[in-house]
Amino acid sequence: MRIEDLDTPALVLERDRLDANLARMSARAKALGVDLRPHLKTAKSAEIARRATAPHSGAITVSTLREAEYFVAQGFTDLLYGVGAVPDKLSRVAALQSGAARVAMVTDQVAVARALGEAAAALGGDFAVLVEIDCGDGRAGVAPESDDLLEIGRVLDAAANVALRGVMTHAGHSYACRNAAEVEAVAEQERAAVVRAAERLRSAGLPCPVVSVGSTPTAAHARSLEGVTEMRPGVYMFNDVFQAEIESCGFDDIALSVLTTVTGHHRERGEIVIDAGGLALSKDRSTAEGPRDVGYGLVCDLRGAAVLPELHVVRVSQEHGIVAAPGGGLPFEALPPGTRLRILPNHACMTAAAYDRYEVVAGGDEVIARWDRVNGW
Amino acid sequence: MRIEDLDTPALVLERDRLDANLARMSARAKALGVDLRPHLKTAKSAEIARRATAPHSGAITVSTLREAEYFVAQGFTDLLYGVGAVPDKLSRVAALQSGAARVAMVTDQVAVARALGEAAAALGGDFAVLVEIDCGDGRAGVAPESDDLLEIGRVLDAAANVALRGVMTHAGHSYACRNAAEVEAVAEQERAAVVRAAERLRSAGLPCPVVSVGSTPTAAHARSLEGVTEMRPGVYMFNDVFQAEIESCGFDDIALSVLTTVTGHHRERGEIVIDAGGLALSKDRSTAEGPRDVGYGLVCDLRGAAVLPELHVVRVSQEHGIVAAPGGGLPFEALPPGTRLRILPNHACMTAAAYDRYEVVAGGDEVIARWDRVNGW
Repeated sequence: MRIEDLDTPALVLERDRLDANLARMSARAKALGVDLRPHLKTAKSAEIARRATAPHSGAITVSTLREAEYFVAQGFTDLLYGVGAVPDKLSRVAALQSGAARVAMVTDQVAVARALGEAAAALGGDFAVLVEIDCGDGRAGVAPESDDLLEIGRVLDAAANVALRGVMTHAGHSYACRNAAEVEAVAEQERAAVVRAAERLRSAGLPCPVVSVGSTPTAAHARSLEGVTEMRPGVYMFNDVFQAEIESCGFDDIALSVLTTVTGHHRERGEIVIDAGGLALSKDRSTAEGPRDVGYGLVCDLRGAAVLPELHVVRVSQEHGIVAAPGGGLPFEALPPGTRLRILPNHACMTAAAYDRYEVVAGGDEVIARWDRVNGW
Repeated sequence: MRIEDLDTPALVLERDRLDANLARMSARAKALGVDLRPHLKTAKSAEIARRATAPHSGAITVSTLREAEYFVAQGFTDLLYGVGAVPDKLSRVAALQSGAARVAMVTDQVAVARALGEAAAALGGDFAVLVEIDCGDGRAGVAPESDDLLEIGRVLDAAANVALRGVMTHAGHSYACRNAAEVEAVAEQERAAVVRAAERLRSAGLPCPVVSVGSTPTAAHARSLEGVTEMRPGVYMFNDVFQAEIESCGFDDIALSVLTTVTGHHRERGEIVIDAGGLALSKDRSTAEGPRDVGYGLVCDLRGAAVLPELHVVRVSQEHGIVAAPGGGLPFEALPPGTRLRILPNHACMTAAAYDRYEVVAGGDEVIARWDRVNGW
């Protein structure tokens, strides 16, 4: 099958770009002397997880328990569930651990650590928990110098059926950087925060075997990961317009796009309508905060080459996208109704989540496989 | 099962509010003397479609061919595929029409009308097409006074295997209104545009049996639909914060919410973290343009009553939502980690699309059913 035979909208993944992205990050991890525990929240695909982990330990990170269930069923055994746990989720984790698989959890709350300890004692089995550290992102995590860090560590270490596995952080504030030099500084902040937290736990006589960092920008630009044991980038597998804008990758490294069809021309407004709207592209507006706002996505031709003059998806409703040329000069004659286009997404994680499969393309236009995805919770 | 036994995040649908919303719109359609062809792009559920169409002809509107395939498999036979068609989609429509079902299409392009005619002649069978009219929304559609209207009508009427079924429009610009009086004016604009288009087609000797309007705000506030044969609202089934803000409904009419769990407190920032983020809530920011910006959703307690002081989801990342009280006074003590909350969404269509099922609740907290949804394309 060729790409022009696909129904639209469709989620297209270029295998060769994917593999190059995986190889580049794998080499980064090896050069920095850490394990790569890729975050599968972006790809949510066993095929991609196998490719990403093949040169490493096989460890993965997930963002939902449904992902965990899917990947355990696919044979993965070393998982980190990277979103703050609560005791109500422990029974699903216990069920996942009925075989060889182990699913470590994270928390940044003393109250949750206590409640997890009590729930684990009641459930039996063995549970591993990491303390989440805030390295400057301001989303979740305790400060490396906080009393809470040691208190959570002590509570977890003392709890029956619970192992204190270590510390983890996510430098989400790297997304506010605008170039590689700024990201490099955040990467050092990320490293320093989590290494300091590990030192404090160890100084208090507590175990801290795992020291985990992770974000695609910092993984791409960290100069040293001394003291760190693993990294957990995720969106690097596909990349997207936002990552290219902040110099995590080049535009030619974007492996994911949405195939769409032109359904109408509105010359009086300088607009064409496509069949990829807010659901097919997502309503993510990451690039609104970046150096160049591409609306809801950057428009390429069927082969994935950027269309000139630059075209953006400027508005969306549920199943309609409106394409315009903010600089003027929309080439109507070259794009009659029925024309296939590809849209590079602002944010690959959000866009991919609307699809239950990838149409995998190689050699420019040959559809060589269909890989499934696991969505939901 | 009770609502507190559900895993989070989960999509909760209150049956009694749903049924009241369906009954109210059904009564509106009957009072206005038109058929109700509800748009299933929001609900994407056969169970809900059956309830919505029971007092009417059974006709429905869909936004994707996957919806069409799902609803035909569930026994629906009179469908309007309400997004601009292209010839590449005709083979799926033909397959859908192999039995009793008929799936009408829409276009606003002379070139597409010609190409559909040629493709229909090649495929055989019978296809119905409506001309899409722009009543002021500026998304798609031809102007009622345009030459293109008559040209498309003539092309479709002359094509073998194609029937010109009529005209349809969508007053999407009603979403820019801020109160019922403004919506009433747009509803009259919507009616007048499509009735005028129908008159022009008929004056040219062309058939126009169907005259179709549709948007939840205009359906809620139209004073007359004289000359119109059917209406196609969709989000009225669930409603959402944006619809309540623009007076399509009351806040007590919002039937859909996302059940979530508090995972952490960050008192130094005045924030709590919940396990519903950008995927569970969507990144829709409709209310940013409305009278009151509630961020990514309005926070209620487990029973669905609004929490005071007013709490909003102020930031999201993929699986994290950040709740704050923009007016100050976040009640940390009342919301310890593990607390279940419900989030009323900005835009029900976008939020529901992340889920493959509804957890249907009645009597406040009893989960009485699980209804499936069809996503994707």
